[in-house]
Amino acid sequence: MMIEVMRLKFFIDKLIAEIEKKNSVVCVGLDPHLDRLPDFLLEKYQVNSAPDRSEKTARLRDVIIEFNSEIIAAVAKTAVIVKPQLALYEQLGLAGIEALKQTIDIAQKEGLLVLFDGKRNDIGSSARGYADAYLKTDSLSGLGKADALTINPFLGQEGIAPFLNYPDKGAFALVRTSNPGAGALQDLLLADDTPFYLKLGSLIAEWGSEYQGESGYSNLGAVVGATRPEELAHLRAQLESTFFLIPGYGAQGGGAAETAGGFDERGLGGIVNAARSIIFAWQRPEIAEKFSTANYAEAAEFAARQMKEEINEVRVGGKK
Amino acid sequence: MMIEVMRLKFFIDKLIAEIEKKNSVVCVGLDPHLDRLPDFLLEKYQVNSAPDRSEKTARLRDVIIEFNSEIIAAVAKTAVIVKPQLALYEQLGLAGIEALKQTIDIAQKEGLLVLFDGKRNDIGSSARGYADAYLKTDSLSGLGKADALTINPFLGQEGIAPFLNYPDKGAFALVRTSNPGAGALQDLLLADDTPFYLKLGSLIAEWGSEYQGESGYSNLGAVVGATRPEELAHLRAQLESTFFLIPGYGAQGGGAAETAGGFDERGLGGIVNAARSIIFAWQRPEIAEKFSTANYAEAAEFAARQMKEEINEVRVGGKK
Repeated sequence: MMIEVMRLKFFIDKLIAEIEKKNSVVCVGLDPHLDRLPDFLLEKYQVNSAPDRSEKTARLRDVIIEFNSEIIAAVAKTAVIVKPQLALYEQLGLAGIEALKQTIDIAQKEGLLVLFDGKRNDIGSSARGYADAYLKTDSLSGLGKADALTINPFLGQEGIAPFLNYPDKGAFALVRTSNPGAGALQDLLLADDTPFYLKLGSLIAEWGSEYQGESGYSNLGAVVGATRPEELAHLRAQLESTFFLIPGYGAQGGGAAETAGGFDERGLGGIVNAARSIIFAWQRPEIAEKFSTANYAEAAEFAARQMKEEINEVRVGGKK
Repeated sequence: MMIEVMRLKFFIDKLIAEIEKKNSVVCVGLDPHLDRLPDFLLEKYQVNSAPDRSEKTARLRDVIIEFNSEIIAAVAKTAVIVKPQLALYEQLGLAGIEALKQTIDIAQKEGLLVLFDGKRNDIGSSARGYADAYLKTDSLSGLGKADALTINPFLGQEGIAPFLNYPDKGAFALVRTSNPGAGALQDLLLADDTPFYLKLGSLIAEWGSEYQGESGYSNLGAVVGATRPEELAHLRAQLESTFFLIPGYGAQGGGAAETAGGFDERGLGGIVNAARSIIFAWQRPEIAEKFSTANYAEAAEFAARQMKEEINEVRVGGKK
């Protein structure tokens, strides 16, 4: 089964095969916010008594690797993909890059795809630099085994094409993000009376049309938040070959019902991301009763399974 | 003189003091394209006979550090700021981060400001992660000594404010980029008949208004290409407190005349970036006659001085 999946050439086809195999569209954000990691792990690695910056970051690297390993093992059967947010690793410099590298290996060994949330963007050889760094499997960076990367489409097609250079790798372009202030630019009304994000969505669909896999979906996906369900449903109807990464579930306020519009009649077309509400689940009041800090991984497993089931309730084609 | 400049609290005031001191608005892009570095340096460090990836990237790191050191020393009197493009370092993984770290130190020792071209963007704690990584002087990343960072404004004000957290550091938000395909999104006409980039520019000015230095300019600048001179002049007139980073000079086709509209009546308001036409100047046909590959640094010095003089010819307030 695994071998068959791995042989699929296109990233998007691999992702869809995993969704069908696991009956899940769950994406878990691996966002190691330093102020929310379990205290006992910081103590175990003596982070706060590190003699200097270099040793402190090395110890934080070890904390993050242990934390990510436990979370990954706990959600491996429930999630199809994990999404490390790059800033939270970059802020540790070299140690962060090492943590990221190990996180890819651990996740892929557990059968999970890896989506780097880097929102990278540039043109020409600089865009190729980013694409090579994170998507070229035998990259000099050592980080090229990631399966996909989020990108920012503001520079136009020249800023997107370089990220589609590897058929077994994917990219998700921001279209309508889930933060409260996103509308200031993304909702601006154009002269033809459509909002900016809708025009952007149609351009993403057009630019991605050459990169369709056997599933009919393209390796160029779109990031569309769950916080505006009517927009999500409208984009789903308009962009039939564009797969969505749907953030905003959980800590950002969207619930399962808000994601429903993101799926097609086969229950495909989107993955839903949650980070803090899964990986720091033991800190959620309604879950804290069941799990202690020491059982943070079990709390994550519980929260991920709950998320999977809640979304499958509303997802057409998701078996209950 | 240096001490006085360093005491200025705001990034933008420090930049302007350097412009006035050096009578120059030249920004040199430190973009180490691996396929354009001098052959003799690759041979000196035996890059192509490296036994493995790790050793190859370590040798490339040494090549880049030597190359950047020579270029920085050569342009230090002419340029006010250098701009490493992060992708070209990230593609080397750990070794690239080390090269970047040393490049900051070398440039700042030579009295140059350092602008990271990373086009970073995210919200909340992730945006703070990037801001801390590259702009917080005592950052855990080891890269926080950079003076400024390019950012992508697509996520709105929440994606920008975290980058303005440090008064002695600046950010330049993309507004109208210089690539041929930029217009597909940036020039879209809004319902009120203005192009998207102009509305974006006015939002950047508004969001930056709280971060003005004594110079009257804000720590939140804008990236506006030199390839559309009429747009540049229009934006200069509209956004009187927004300092511009003007790419597109040199290899991208814009000449000095195209940058003229970017300056105010004092000759301030913009820095002009050139990368390949300076750092690989010895490869330019009209310069190759004067300098051999071995004299690549002298060629860069010559090209940077020529650039400074050409722009000062058209820059009001620039002494000829």
